[in-house]
Amino acid sequence: MLSFKEIQDAHTRIQPFIHRTPVLTNSSLNEMTGSDLYFKCENFQKVGAFKIRGATNTVLQLSKDELSRGVVTASSGNHGAALAMAVSKLGGKTTVVMPNNTSKIKVNNVERNGGKIIWCEPNQSSREKTLKTVLEESGGVLVHPYNNERIIAGQGTAAKELLEDYPDLDCIVSPVSGGGLLSGSVISAKSLNSDIQVFGAEPKEADDAFRSLKMGDIQSNETTNTICDGLRAQIGSITFPIIQEKVDRIITMSEQEIIESMELIWERMKIIVEPSSTITLGAVLKEKELFKGKRVGLILSGGNVDLGTLPF
Amino acid sequence: MLSFKEIQDAHTRIQPFIHRTPVLTNSSLNEMTGSDLYFKCENFQKVGAFKIRGATNTVLQLSKDELSRGVVTASSGNHGAALAMAVSKLGGKTTVVMPNNTSKIKVNNVERNGGKIIWCEPNQSSREKTLKTVLEESGGVLVHPYNNERIIAGQGTAAKELLEDYPDLDCIVSPVSGGGLLSGSVISAKSLNSDIQVFGAEPKEADDAFRSLKMGDIQSNETTNTICDGLRAQIGSITFPIIQEKVDRIITMSEQEIIESMELIWERMKIIVEPSSTITLGAVLKEKELFKGKRVGLILSGGNVDLGTLPF
Repeated sequence: MLSFKEIQDAHTRIQPFIHRTPVLTNSSLNEMTGSDLYFKCENFQKVGAFKIRGATNTVLQLSKDELSRGVVTASSGNHGAALAMAVSKLGGKTTVVMPNNTSKIKVNNVERNGGKIIWCEPNQSSREKTLKTVLEESGGVLVHPYNNERIIAGQGTAAKELLEDYPDLDCIVSPVSGGGLLSGSVISAKSLNSDIQVFGAEPKEADDAFRSLKMGDIQSNETTNTICDGLRAQIGSITFPIIQEKVDRIITMSEQEIIESMELIWERMKIIVEPSSTITLGAVLKEKELFKGKRVGLILSGGNVDLGTLPF
Repeated sequence: MLSFKEIQDAHTRIQPFIHRTPVLTNSSLNEMTGSDLYFKCENFQKVGAFKIRGATNTVLQLSKDELSRGVVTASSGNHGAALAMAVSKLGGKTTVVMPNNTSKIKVNNVERNGGKIIWCEPNQSSREKTLKTVLEESGGVLVHPYNNERIIAGQGTAAKELLEDYPDLDCIVSPVSGGGLLSGSVISAKSLNSDIQVFGAEPKEADDAFRSLKMGDIQSNETTNTICDGLRAQIGSITFPIIQEKVDRIITMSEQEIIESMELIWERMKIIVEPSSTITLGAVLKEKELFKGKRVGLILSGGNVDLGTLPF
């Protein structure tokens, strides 16, 4: 299993290329929840999401030969843009297989960073088939969005920074989709503080991580009909065992609960955050007793939202 | 005329009650404008706007007798909420005369801070008439939203903080409506750096400050048909002479230019800012040559926007 040492090394490696994002607090949300909330603002990160951490850590370890062959991934948006940015800085090319219902802002972010998009249907089988074809035809190197130890090590640096800034947190809440952010976060958190609790926040409409933990092995999503466009992936074979061993609990939420958490953060904190991120506040609001009186770190994973299609 | 000493005293007085707001930068907007932009984020201020500065400075100087009589103002929103917060902290009551087309978030902010609202029609004569009636009937103390030296001194502390953090700015851009923020800002800025240039940013649809400077005396707004709901007031008899003597130029913009600046800040900076604030970036984008290669401070005055009625 990935060690904290690898997250520390990743942090040293990527620091010159990423922002150390701020941690914000908000007295009105503290009052509403009865907790002390510390929001790690990865929406202010380069490309507007934590994904630049894992992508940079991976790309910096590719050989010259691998880079020259081109880098390929499948992504609903933020990982694709992050990978394109990291690769283009080293002079390489990136191809991103993307569902044809991806939000406009995420498409623009990939293209602005020099990535080439190949469209697929918004389902797992079309995504895998298209990715396979692109890899065969291009001879490129696959950088998986989450089921990859270098990616996980990079994503774990966000929680590491949060705990360096606020060492006495009682718990951390992270969104969970494929599990890269949550598995990296839990390794960092429990290495720095063995008493800390770590929770995943997941939409009921894409609750494969919750059901996988319950059943003891990886389950597929039955639907991905959620506003959280960053949380529709399926938990990975590398991320799941880490989550199974170390995460305390997955908290699931309805779409309405997620939208309410989004509106609250936008209105009270005046920051733009994706629903895939605000779900962490949703978890604290839903399980108030669990978090009451505690110091809670929340990872706001990204801020790429189509401003023309808001849910409120 | 108000001196910088009064702004320094105001700052000492209000510091325990306000946030020292952060200054953000954004490389993609720097690239787009060819300038180095420093955004003073008063959208993160208490009540979501700089108005808490002037309101707090004024309320802290009221006598016990004045406070016990109750405080009265007319406001399209942010000043009303700020005054209600400042007064309620001292145990007093606030009445706010408010146009009946005020945005929901600004109404809620006044009520959440314990202010009582008296509605008027959205025009100058109904506002003045209603205010006069309330003052007569209640015997309360008027705290004018901008035409008041204590208010101006408070508002000037935002530019003071900005220049303490970034002393070598070449210029500052502030929105202008009644002129409290712009007049306070220009006194701070030119006291701290006699070479600095200070510009006002104003909607073409409420361009009384621009025309007043041109004509040499106070002109009325011909329309207030602007998305900038914080910039519909008329320049004051105390603020105008300061602006006339010290401000370098007023830059006016179309509604389309203002909306574009708002979308850019929301999308690239991931922060929620009122159109009345983003107009400062609009001014830099409109007059690119004027700002090219310069270090520009922009005062983002507030972030209270109805999320259900966005212009994009």
